[in-house]
Amino acid sequence: MAPAEPQYIRINARDNVAVVVNEGGLPAGTLFASGLELREDIPEAHKVALTHLAEGDAIVRYGEIIGIASRAITRGSWVHEGLMKLPEAPPLSSCPLATAPPPALAPLDGYAFQGYRNPDGTAGTRNILGISTTVQCVAPTVEHAVRRIRAEILPRYPHVDDVVAITHPYGCGVAIDAPGAIIPIRTLRNLALHPNFGGEVLVVSLGCEKLQPARLMAASELPILESEPSYAVLQNAQSGFGEIVANIMMLAEKKIARLNENRRVTCPASDLVVGLQCGGSDALSGVTANPAVGFAADLLVRAGATVMFSEVTEVRDAAHLLTARAATPEVARAFVREMAWYDDYLRQGGADRAANPTPGNKKGGLTNIVEKAMGSIAKAGSSALMAVAGPGERVTQKGLVFAATPASDFICGTLQLAASMNVHIFTTGRGTPYGLAMAPVIKVATNSGLARRWPDLIDIDAGRIATAEKTVEEVGWEIFLTVLDVASGKKKTWADHWGLHNDFALFNPGPVT
Amino acid sequence: MAPAEPQYIRINARDNVAVVVNEGGLPAGTLFASGLELREDIPEAHKVALTHLAEGDAIVRYGEIIGIASRAITRGSWVHEGLMKLPEAPPLSSCPLATAPPPALAPLDGYAFQGYRNPDGTAGTRNILGISTTVQCVAPTVEHAVRRIRAEILPRYPHVDDVVAITHPYGCGVAIDAPGAIIPIRTLRNLALHPNFGGEVLVVSLGCEKLQPARLMAASELPILESEPSYAVLQNAQSGFGEIVANIMMLAEKKIARLNENRRVTCPASDLVVGLQCGGSDALSGVTANPAVGFAADLLVRAGATVMFSEVTEVRDAAHLLTARAATPEVARAFVREMAWYDDYLRQGGADRAANPTPGNKKGGLTNIVEKAMGSIAKAGSSALMAVAGPGERVTQKGLVFAATPASDFICGTLQLAASMNVHIFTTGRGTPYGLAMAPVIKVATNSGLARRWPDLIDIDAGRIATAEKTVEEVGWEIFLTVLDVASGKKKTWADHWGLHNDFALFNPGPVT
Repeated sequence: MAPAEPQYIRINARDNVAVVVNEGGLPAGTLFASGLELREDIPEAHKVALTHLAEGDAIVRYGEIIGIASRAITRGSWVHEGLMKLPEAPPLSSCPLATAPPPALAPLDGYAFQGYRNPDGTAGTRNILGISTTVQCVAPTVEHAVRRIRAEILPRYPHVDDVVAITHPYGCGVAIDAPGAIIPIRTLRNLALHPNFGGEVLVVSLGCEKLQPARLMAASELPILESEPSYAVLQNAQSGFGEIVANIMMLAEKKIARLNENRRVTCPASDLVVGLQCGGSDALSGVTANPAVGFAADLLVRAGATVMFSEVTEVRDAAHLLTARAATPEVARAFVREMAWYDDYLRQGGADRAANPTPGNKKGGLTNIVEKAMGSIAKAGSSALMAVAGPGERVTQKGLVFAATPASDFICGTLQLAASMNVHIFTTGRGTPYGLAMAPVIKVATNSGLARRWPDLIDIDAGRIATAEKTVEEVGWEIFLTVLDVASGKKKTWADHWGLHNDFALFNPGPVT
Repeated sequence: MAPAEPQYIRINARDNVAVVVNEGGLPAGTLFASGLELREDIPEAHKVALTHLAEGDAIVRYGEIIGIASRAITRGSWVHEGLMKLPEAPPLSSCPLATAPPPALAPLDGYAFQGYRNPDGTAGTRNILGISTTVQCVAPTVEHAVRRIRAEILPRYPHVDDVVAITHPYGCGVAIDAPGAIIPIRTLRNLALHPNFGGEVLVVSLGCEKLQPARLMAASELPILESEPSYAVLQNAQSGFGEIVANIMMLAEKKIARLNENRRVTCPASDLVVGLQCGGSDALSGVTANPAVGFAADLLVRAGATVMFSEVTEVRDAAHLLTARAATPEVARAFVREMAWYDDYLRQGGADRAANPTPGNKKGGLTNIVEKAMGSIAKAGSSALMAVAGPGERVTQKGLVFAATPASDFICGTLQLAASMNVHIFTTGRGTPYGLAMAPVIKVATNSGLARRWPDLIDIDAGRIATAEKTVEEVGWEIFLTVLDVASGKKKTWADHWGLHNDFALFNPGPVT
């Protein structure tokens, strides 16, 4: 239900702008209970000036400067992109290092889920055969085999959820010794070792590609491939396509038979590795969905889980806040290192962080990347930052972790999977039918209009916070409990219901050849 | 059949190395009819020294210097990577510009195929509905719709061959104003307008993404989208996933109904746009398959068709030969410009052309990129170079054209499709089950061993040239006639038989955000 009364949300006492939350926006002349009167029409989720602003004044939201007024702005006016200049990004050299790590949150005991216990101690939320590939040449062949495995083999193994082919355009035709090549290679390696694959690894190789199986795996992991035949090389086939497919199916069935022995067991919530992401954000993201996810993140951290946030360009403008929150100076320095790497990466490509917001973000009231960043980091809750992982690295630490990834939904999702995410929470304001094959994705709407329009795509409506039907805490608990249910296989996400699974998208900063 | 006698192939009278062609290679002590005796075992397709070479001597194959001897090499020895240094690439500043354009080849009349005539004058070799996407967010939804279209709509329209979704990781989370962004954008635009789509365009957009439909299409092409509803925007849906899918299916059926009216008609061979590529090459590529394809390329050029070759890193070392062959200095300068752009692109990524050959190339006797390049350009035949297209640009000129693309099979294939390729010829020595959904791919083996092992993946065996069963001219004619049959839909390629279709792989030199 939309509120009957005109309403805006101011996040921080220092803010001189607030966000209109009424569905459909509000017309000029609207009078708020505070006495503020709108000078012009303001769309839903867009900003209104709470005070008169002179040219050059700081525009403050979330208690932080999100822009500089490029001309005078009257109280009650619409504060939009045309009136704001982008401030400089916080200089990395002067970021405070672990100056204000929050004290440990009170432990939260007694929460568990039904998961699959893996030999390496991790826990899966699904029981899937993953088929890794070293090069795109083999992708259509593997997909052909997967269709046949689904039709001919899986029905005989009811405890196995699915077969997923990890296909990608990497592996050959790339500068495999270039400085950036480590990123896609370790991403593929860590995807192959994902906790939802139950410790079973199967790799399909062409034979002549640059990314040989022995290069895909680290030396310490090669025994996984070699202990029993765990990889197929197409070019070894002596009698054509039939043999190629039969060989992949034969290897797959051996592993499926073992996976079929797995059963869900009670796992503590600390076995969860929850990845957070937003996509198609609007100005309500930082008011409703992201703070509620932040509350859930704190609950997860209190329960001992790993919570990952990501998206470098969307935290860059909050770097000084996050380095201060780091548990140790080492963690803060690792964070600065990832920011600096990405600054350089963008500069080399002739871009900068301002390239991030989309036309849809702007329509949704997000004026620039600073405002987007301040809303984005609300997802990370309030706990200390315990660790930082590079793109594609596996995350093993508990607590709040920053996994450095691009903000692109599909690349971030792929890299969070590589980091060993077993549940994904995705907030969206504009709406996207996003999903992943390897781990369930819980979609949280920032506004009730979207949740109502897309009832069969959105899992949780955080828009009820804007309409004062629910509090941040209430929706936060709902998200936390939904994570446990989805992780247990008790509740199916809408993306899984429809089988909506985005392709893997690798981050390859190196050149192709 | 392997030849009973030991045999090697020397390409050019100036060559001081030759390639052993006997299957399985030859042992030390083997005596050739020429009197040459092997000093050591030499694997099939690897090089033998025909003369004594001193340290620092040029190693010559194809009449060109492919390397410098890093130590003395005795006559009859195996000339492998460990004995050769890579020469400098030909300096672009001194490439001869159109100094030796070959005279026009004699016209070849009377060859035609049965194709689909398009409103814009181009011809299709298949009758497909293409569904373009502006962003990966919509990919799983479009794939869901495509599965339903195939099951529920296509059976009622028997003259339509297929529905193909052009999905990709571009469109958002990218620096869309970066200098390199024009490449993926024009690639997607030109794929949407491919001649095998019969002039019907259908675009699916999310709504908030950076690559809006109006940006995907050039201004002059926007009427194609707007003349009737030709695009779906997911975020416009008011009632969820069912409506989203129904809307895509409704738009698709309108276009399928029109495509269903199309019939094959006689088209002159000059309507063909044939793309050439090699992948998984070996040292026989430049002796058997590529020269035979080169002969077919000349036949196609004589018949008035467009023949495209590509793969920048595989022609870079032949730049001086190709600029001399350009029809005009402008064409030569355009060629130099593309080479220089790619040199810079690789340098910025910390790589160079030496990153090209794969472990499989090397096992197959291709020592370095110079040797690979000399073999690769044999595909281009002997006619003058008439035009040069940048990556993702559409090719409209007749005759031999260089379409600048990376050598990565999938990226090259995608870019050649964007250039409007309607038949693809792919040569392979090591073997790859490569195929494309949008245009048929004819696979030519460089060696008979591969053709025998993979009888249901390889379409033409050019290895018979090495065994003297066939001449280059005979296999060239076979390829030419196969192109006409495949273009006419009379003959099905093995990749199409099995439905092996590699995913589109965009070339995005710009950064992701």
